[in-house]
Amino acid sequence: MSSAACSQDYSFGPHTIHASEVFVESTLSFAFVNLKPVVPGHVLISPKRVVPRFAALSADEVADLWVLAQRVGAAVEPHFGATSLTLTIQDGEQAGQSVPHVHVHCLPRRAGDFEKNDEVYDAIDEHTRMHRPGERLDLDAERRVRTRAEMAAEAGALRKLF
Amino acid sequence: MSSAACSQDYSFGPHTIHASEVFVESTLSFAFVNLKPVVPGHVLISPKRVVPRFAALSADEVADLWVLAQRVGAAVEPHFGATSLTLTIQDGEQAGQSVPHVHVHCLPRRAGDFEKNDEVYDAIDEHTRMHRPGERLDLDAERRVRTRAEMAAEAGALRKLF
Repeated sequence: MSSAACSQDYSFGPHTIHASEVFVESTLSFAFVNLKPVVPGHVLISPKRVVPRFAALSADEVADLWVLAQRVGAAVEPHFGATSLTLTIQDGEQAGQSVPHVHVHCLPRRAGDFEKNDEVYDAIDEHTRMHRPGERLDLDAERRVRTRAEMAAEAGALRKLF
Repeated sequence: MSSAACSQDYSFGPHTIHASEVFVESTLSFAFVNLKPVVPGHVLISPKRVVPRFAALSADEVADLWVLAQRVGAAVEPHFGATSLTLTIQDGEQAGQSVPHVHVHCLPRRAGDFEKNDEVYDAIDEHTRMHRPGERLDLDAERRVRTRAEMAAEAGALRKLF
């Protein structure tokens, strides 16, 4: 699907993801930039249908979601100079899910990007400020909320990868 | 697929997963119990083909893997008295992947199972000892390696769920 096709807003749980923040979509899923990314290129992939739990997705939705997540990961990893990916669904409140709409977190990873590798996950939940490479995360610090213009600019750059 | 069909060993990177440790399989994927689970019911789902990175899977393999992971999650969550699931792929060494063969970690989650929610991810990588509910993880402690008999017993119990 060409970048020009990302012309629609989507619901993300109770929130609205504006078309300008969507960078690629498939039949049943869409990929969008993050209000408060933990690392550069931290993006999200969701089914278009608002469904809180992964178990409620149809097999077609599961397949479509993860094939799109695979495409997104393959594109953002080199784009952000990364060498690995963290791909995770926090499926339910006790797993750290904050928005009641299934979403795959896709994070480009680099050697030394976190002092301890899995601090990346703390950062996903805790909404701390943007992480700087090699730095230990300070979970009490606020992560800056980006402007819509910043998000649209990033989505525009990512749209060109598809 | 009935439980009786899990009669084959599989390669998991350089390791062998014995048929007794496999509890459900699909056309292209298999699900198996864990040598060193972080929480009760921490299981793994892999494509049958030995492929290190997620990007190298075909669309059919991606769909098959995640539809099986969805089935597994829906079964283990209530079986272990959990209310959420952590589903994650550590895709590449810089994301914490230790076995060079794609695998989905599926962890049943409960309120208070970790002092801080995302310590669960530290535990996935660090191979610490089995976590006790509410306890802070001690990453320096060794997590006990289970015996093949213990693993086969758990796989046998899980096989009955499918």
